[in-house]
Amino acid sequence: MKGKVYLVGAGPGDPELLTVKAFKALKIADVVLHDELISPGILALVPKTAQLRGVGKRGGRKNIRQEEINALLVQFALLGMQVVRLKGGDPMIFGRAGEEIEVLRRAGIEVEVIPGVTAALGAAASVQIPLTHRDISSAVLVVTGHSSEAGPDNWPGHISPGTTVVVYMPGYSYENTARRLMAAGLKESTPCAIISQATTADKQVYRTTLDALPRVPRLPAPALLVAGEVVRFADHYALQQQFSWAAEPSGKATLQFLAQAGSQEQSE
Amino acid sequence: MKGKVYLVGAGPGDPELLTVKAFKALKIADVVLHDELISPGILALVPKTAQLRGVGKRGGRKNIRQEEINALLVQFALLGMQVVRLKGGDPMIFGRAGEEIEVLRRAGIEVEVIPGVTAALGAAASVQIPLTHRDISSAVLVVTGHSSEAGPDNWPGHISPGTTVVVYMPGYSYENTARRLMAAGLKESTPCAIISQATTADKQVYRTTLDALPRVPRLPAPALLVAGEVVRFADHYALQQQFSWAAEPSGKATLQFLAQAGSQEQSE
Repeated sequence: MKGKVYLVGAGPGDPELLTVKAFKALKIADVVLHDELISPGILALVPKTAQLRGVGKRGGRKNIRQEEINALLVQFALLGMQVVRLKGGDPMIFGRAGEEIEVLRRAGIEVEVIPGVTAALGAAASVQIPLTHRDISSAVLVVTGHSSEAGPDNWPGHISPGTTVVVYMPGYSYENTARRLMAAGLKESTPCAIISQATTADKQVYRTTLDALPRVPRLPAPALLVAGEVVRFADHYALQQQFSWAAEPSGKATLQFLAQAGSQEQSE
Repeated sequence: MKGKVYLVGAGPGDPELLTVKAFKALKIADVVLHDELISPGILALVPKTAQLRGVGKRGGRKNIRQEEINALLVQFALLGMQVVRLKGGDPMIFGRAGEEIEVLRRAGIEVEVIPGVTAALGAAASVQIPLTHRDISSAVLVVTGHSSEAGPDNWPGHISPGTTVVVYMPGYSYENTARRLMAAGLKESTPCAIISQATTADKQVYRTTLDALPRVPRLPAPALLVAGEVVRFADHYALQQQFSWAAEPSGKATLQFLAQAGSQEQSE
């Protein structure tokens, strides 16, 4: 009998942000093929009896190709195994799930997609940035900076005012990113936040404006960029540790390191 | 001692798509203020000892205003209660969470946001539509049709090619919706799906194209519209029950009712 493949969203990092359904799928898995950057706390939930295989396309196994992952999924399912394909965030957003589903369907293998809390929502919750806000933002646009699925060449040429933009995997070419967003219509003064490792103990956040984005230091992946007026609502108290660029009247930016633990001082 | 307010995403409908963290918050709640259209299976998780109050702005309690909800949140927290504000999907997308957070911060009340699987992801998973796909869609735009937060007047004037559009709360003025999307640059032939009550046993889906959208019958809320080439990847087999408009060469649409239970017949 053929096994079944579960494409499962691991959520933004915190193991408690797995859905109950994802949690259950991990518990019955015979094999788990996981992306890079899935948090250790989540991988620890996989039963010791199950095979655990990293198939991340960056890092340790640089040369694994999507075709190989597809072949592994089919192969394990044909062996009758319950296969979990574990992806950061949600499988249907920049997860190449479409390609995997296609291959599995063609092989006659049952697929179930278990959605997850996508990175934008984990980041928004952990920094308390509402992605939409009455009178300020009425649309959310999600794009990706670096991905084999869709590169920055495919970015929308025009972004309407009142749109909150979330850039997944922004990489470190912030200058490029800022230029593209401004070319698409965003103002230089648009507030931005780079949120790294949201929902985990290692979370870091940088606040800035679009024109100052090139001066932001490199924060560890996974990270994302939120650009839009709603970033003004970010809660500094919610942050364990925050780096913030406070724009001075002169237009220069000052780096402020806010050790937030216990601090009740507002940063701006 | 002041209580704390948890803004909690209830996810797309299926109680198993609650996060573990949301599940735990419900279990410790003294009072749960919930939106309309939260599925009964989720409300059933609230302990019998807790107060359960519907504060939906549609339906039964039409006249409850956001200001009243804000006041209730503050009031319960000041009484020292653990307050869960339960919202469909994720709190930070069209949930007016920004306003509630602001009021609570001003009152000095601690707020925690627990993200949820937003409706778009629940729908995408349950119909197996990848929201992004290599070479086809590299961006996702989320807008809302009807909401006190942001109405269709705030829709982006221009939508770049290769963008998957998800309309939350599309309402029933499909003609209007189609016209706006086409005015923003979407082609008449763009595949669309209306997905109603995704991830629940009552799920219904209608497939069509943008120009035929006005002829789609009313499906029960909560529903959303996905428009984009990726809709072509939707899996008919994944549907329990599907209505599909198959556009005929004449341009007329044919209503097909596909009783899918056990059927392995492809619909197009």
